[in-house]
Amino acid sequence: MAAIHSISTVEAARRKLHEFLGERVSIAQSVREHHSHGEDTHPPALPDLVCFPHSTEEVSRIARVSAEHGLPIVPFGAGTSLEGHVQALRGGISIDMREMNRVLRISADDMDATVEAGVTRKQLQKALENTGLTFFIDPGADATLGGMAATRASGTTAVKYGTMRENVLGLTVVLADGRAIQTGTRARKSSAGYDLTRLFVGSEGTLGIITEVTLRLHAQPEAVTAAICAFESIEDAVKTVIEAIQLGVSVARIEFMDEHQVDAVNRYSHTGLKVKPTLLFEFHGVSQRAVEEAATMAQELAAEHGGLGFEWRTTLAEREELWKARHDVYYATRALRPGSRVLTTDVCVPISRLAECIVETRVELDQASFPAVMVGHVGDGNFHVQCLLDESQLGEAAEFSERLVERAQAMGGTCSGEHGIGLGKKKYLEHEHGAGVDVMRAIKRTLDPENRMNPGKVLDI
Amino acid sequence: MAAIHSISTVEAARRKLHEFLGERVSIAQSVREHHSHGEDTHPPALPDLVCFPHSTEEVSRIARVSAEHGLPIVPFGAGTSLEGHVQALRGGISIDMREMNRVLRISADDMDATVEAGVTRKQLQKALENTGLTFFIDPGADATLGGMAATRASGTTAVKYGTMRENVLGLTVVLADGRAIQTGTRARKSSAGYDLTRLFVGSEGTLGIITEVTLRLHAQPEAVTAAICAFESIEDAVKTVIEAIQLGVSVARIEFMDEHQVDAVNRYSHTGLKVKPTLLFEFHGVSQRAVEEAATMAQELAAEHGGLGFEWRTTLAEREELWKARHDVYYATRALRPGSRVLTTDVCVPISRLAECIVETRVELDQASFPAVMVGHVGDGNFHVQCLLDESQLGEAAEFSERLVERAQAMGGTCSGEHGIGLGKKKYLEHEHGAGVDVMRAIKRTLDPENRMNPGKVLDI
Repeated sequence: MAAIHSISTVEAARRKLHEFLGERVSIAQSVREHHSHGEDTHPPALPDLVCFPHSTEEVSRIARVSAEHGLPIVPFGAGTSLEGHVQALRGGISIDMREMNRVLRISADDMDATVEAGVTRKQLQKALENTGLTFFIDPGADATLGGMAATRASGTTAVKYGTMRENVLGLTVVLADGRAIQTGTRARKSSAGYDLTRLFVGSEGTLGIITEVTLRLHAQPEAVTAAICAFESIEDAVKTVIEAIQLGVSVARIEFMDEHQVDAVNRYSHTGLKVKPTLLFEFHGVSQRAVEEAATMAQELAAEHGGLGFEWRTTLAEREELWKARHDVYYATRALRPGSRVLTTDVCVPISRLAECIVETRVELDQASFPAVMVGHVGDGNFHVQCLLDESQLGEAAEFSERLVERAQAMGGTCSGEHGIGLGKKKYLEHEHGAGVDVMRAIKRTLDPENRMNPGKVLDI
Repeated sequence: MAAIHSISTVEAARRKLHEFLGERVSIAQSVREHHSHGEDTHPPALPDLVCFPHSTEEVSRIARVSAEHGLPIVPFGAGTSLEGHVQALRGGISIDMREMNRVLRISADDMDATVEAGVTRKQLQKALENTGLTFFIDPGADATLGGMAATRASGTTAVKYGTMRENVLGLTVVLADGRAIQTGTRARKSSAGYDLTRLFVGSEGTLGIITEVTLRLHAQPEAVTAAICAFESIEDAVKTVIEAIQLGVSVARIEFMDEHQVDAVNRYSHTGLKVKPTLLFEFHGVSQRAVEEAATMAQELAAEHGGLGFEWRTTLAEREELWKARHDVYYATRALRPGSRVLTTDVCVPISRLAECIVETRVELDQASFPAVMVGHVGDGNFHVQCLLDESQLGEAAEFSERLVERAQAMGGTCSGEHGIGLGKKKYLEHEHGAGVDVMRAIKRTLDPENRMNPGKVLDI
């Protein structure tokens, strides 16, 4: 991509940044390239500079340098975006948050924690060892908590524990002009003023840079059990899910894999599962009796829908094997066709339309020239398609993806359940929110009048 | 309050409104007086006109008349605000939403419903009869769903089911210029764009007028049980709560009443309860066994903290009696001193500080010249104080209330857990959110540049 900012502008900014960051500002080509893309199929776009701040104060100072020199800012976490969030479309400064990686506070009594934005999910889990507490949101990748907040991430446990929307209590955010604000309090609920926390959660770095996140934690469940069940058809599997949700069966996870996904998992993780549409369940409760009761209810529902044997996974080792296999689907899928480009989509529909949406999508995929698998957090109505492509198939896959979004939106759903809009789904936002996008745009212009904060993402102003 | 708008302006607006509302626009003194206050202690402030729209389109047209004539708009629901939300501080148009009271759609499959903003909680409950579904949020009053969304209301069941923040899936909102927008989708989760739903939930009519609300519903629990337990001290009661929450005991309600509140309830509802700090519990589950297990765990915790007999309330009749008594605390308290003014406060703190906060507050109340009772949704860290006052005690109570807010904020809590800011708590917002209030103000100015939307509430611009 051609340089947008002159060498002298970039050099002047670099000198200013060097004053307080020292060697933690880089213009090295390899560093810029590393910060030019996520795990998506969009073309890379290099920043002019990459900074590695250690504090909110340093982020504020970087924002002031950005303002002074008219350079955009693109926050960068673990680089696992699937929608082109971190491409520096207009150059400028990539702020790599991974050195802001301190767990600042864990309160066992209040079951909350405050972390710097660069702390990753696994790092937080490690810090929570021996506290009896856990943080359940797991988007698959070992993403940073700041990135997860910025994209309103979720994952397999959202059906019970919610998404980042429900699990962020407060934020520290640096605004375009360098001011830092705190949103929220440590109270579990509040009616005090506009909900700025929820405004910044999911704003993808376009309204401000999240530097600290206060998270709600959950008690480690006293008892856990899991199960897996194959079905003859996608409809049977999804109908089991719908009934379980409607009956209030307390599932902590309820995940779907189509037969192609199961096949990929078998090859990669040597799991020997039936190559059929399959549901994976997990149940959390205060006692073994409670989780067995919930699992038994799910078992009965599965049986009513022709489930091909409901296999309990009661030991920790069995459960870990099951969820490791589920967790690795992304890699399992890639291994089906090594070296291919992977387009990963993400829609979410009202649960009453889920079976229809998944079946129609599978029918279409069966006619595509590329292999594709489906996997979903079906308790939420959310599912993904991974398409394995060579360069010549990118266009066909893009058209498929567009039809999938249109199908989901026509069913009252959303163009993104958890991956975000980024660069890839801007065109769908208008259709989904209509005049609401004008309101989003007005807010963007107010908080970032110079359009320096991750410009070109979520919406164009 | 002196007229702010000239007679000719008001008359010109009235004629315009009459064109499409007919007799559903009123300038009658009695109607204006009815719309000049809620259930708070703030001075009434009369609107110039009161409108009773029947559709979002009519609300849009009212907003355009407001814009044309420079008249403020104050949305009015059931008139049960406790913080001066509905006072027409600068005159203008009170929009009474109660004739927009259609339940537009109930989806049993998706467990959601869309209602017009004037539908009340009880009306929705009635519409849900025989669906197997329910809506749990109950702020005590039979408020409108629009009003509950606007104040981010909650109530006794928030500890399990969340507040309006978690239970509103989407809104129809009329903006200051008359444009109507839809926020959210019917998908359970979404990462598509800024979270406008959460921005309008809790904005108290200052950013737009909520005309329709899409709500998340819950399955009626298969099994329910309840219990009541008195304690020798406030600390013992609150510590039981804290441990229950920390252990993940699945409570649907966990309510605290201090001994003065219990005494008021006994007199009003003839309940014969021990006049001691008391907890009320409710447990929801998929089976009798599940709820009994949770209740037994709570019973054991209560016993460890010296609970004075944990009385199960297993039959529907027993439970209804219990919760009716809890529900009527506001009236029970008023009856302690008939004719008095009632100041009701509302703070929320991290649960680790709850015992300390309640005890310090009780100590202070014991020295006050007015009677006061305490009641709380303690599982959330949220509690209320009701002060029974004569006119001469309003100042003393205001000072008490100020110290209570300062105490809660110093503990990392919030100046309002569920009643909102309105007119009464504006001064605390700055202290709680600091520079965040500048961001709120910027958003307010962007969406309502003429400050016509419920002016003088939440924040001054």
